[in-house]
Amino acid sequence: MSSVTCQISISLDGFVAGPNQSIDNPIGEGGMRLHQWAVKTASWREQQGLEGGERGADSEVIDEVFEGVGAYIMGRKMFGGGEGPWDETWTGWWGDDPPYHAPVFVLTHHAREPLSMQGGTTFTFVTDGIESALEQARTAAGDQDVAIAGGASAVRQYLRAGALDELYLHIVPITLGAGERLFEDVGDPSLEPVKVIASPAVTHVKYRVARRLSP
Amino acid sequence: MSSVTCQISISLDGFVAGPNQSIDNPIGEGGMRLHQWAVKTASWREQQGLEGGERGADSEVIDEVFEGVGAYIMGRKMFGGGEGPWDETWTGWWGDDPPYHAPVFVLTHHAREPLSMQGGTTFTFVTDGIESALEQARTAAGDQDVAIAGGASAVRQYLRAGALDELYLHIVPITLGAGERLFEDVGDPSLEPVKVIASPAVTHVKYRVARRLSP
Repeated sequence: MSSVTCQISISLDGFVAGPNQSIDNPIGEGGMRLHQWAVKTASWREQQGLEGGERGADSEVIDEVFEGVGAYIMGRKMFGGGEGPWDETWTGWWGDDPPYHAPVFVLTHHAREPLSMQGGTTFTFVTDGIESALEQARTAAGDQDVAIAGGASAVRQYLRAGALDELYLHIVPITLGAGERLFEDVGDPSLEPVKVIASPAVTHVKYRVARRLSP
Repeated sequence: MSSVTCQISISLDGFVAGPNQSIDNPIGEGGMRLHQWAVKTASWREQQGLEGGERGADSEVIDEVFEGVGAYIMGRKMFGGGEGPWDETWTGWWGDDPPYHAPVFVLTHHAREPLSMQGGTTFTFVTDGIESALEQARTAAGDQDVAIAGGASAVRQYLRAGALDELYLHIVPITLGAGERLFEDVGDPSLEPVKVIASPAVTHVKYRVARRLSP
């Protein structure tokens, strides 16, 4: 069976987003510092249709995390558009051609018709919980993996439910001091490091998560 | 000049000791889970005068962290004996022959005569602050390193003061949920990963700390 994965950048003090997230600053104050290692890479730039960038261990990690993903799941906050019933003019942060190029299932309490974007990305809005979203994403992914794209709350929910098979942390050598913690109220997951890639910018550690509960 | 170093085991959720520390449970509930990787190694056991144990990457890391240390600094809580004026029958957690075999400077608000233990460990009680303790430790260490032995509060103080040159984290794949955080109120240190050692049990990452302030 395909795996349920998550890859996410985390500060040394455990934050995956900075404080005071807003429309203008969706990953919070200082949050972009978590992603500087990624946006510098050639692989990231290629995905955005840009030239240049650095090749090396970090770029290879970027290639790796997008390989073999057949569907994504993300939280409402990561899709954006504010809280409450949908403003249907909001179609995500990513413009007409989002970087997913695959079905994306958005966890929300508010129903909305699916959205088809350019480049093969579709957003399907799931109102009946994380298990339903996972089931739909598995079906869409076929024998490919389902990636939990974020944010922190969505990852925490799947980790707590024992539904995550693999967690790939990019440990960024900064402290944010405040923001969204990844490992809060996630129970006591059993994690085993199975791969470590070191770069001058960041330490990538892939953990296999032992399944404690069936989702 | 010699370096000021620290090596410490930390959980994925950022704790270096569990909650509810006490005389019976000096590193807090669940805190021993942070150190299981170490106590299993042959190097650790040798230090305690025991035979057996596992050889491998983790054992080599244990050898490495004790090499070249000429003096230690630790907080009062790590030395133990409760709060307030000293009960002079308390000579630390480690018995007659503590595993330091070097001068140890204990940060405290309460004066006490130095203690000489077996095996070359001496405890000197420093009441005039972290800078004084560092100066005394540097003098004692000569051209060897000064290691901040812990606990969390002592490490945080030296990190915040910009006095730490090297921080070697042993990232243990567990969550403790509560306890003593290492990276809290430490400012915004500039850290650079300079060495990564992977084992099935733990990921060792050595960071060089850029000095922002002179102590």
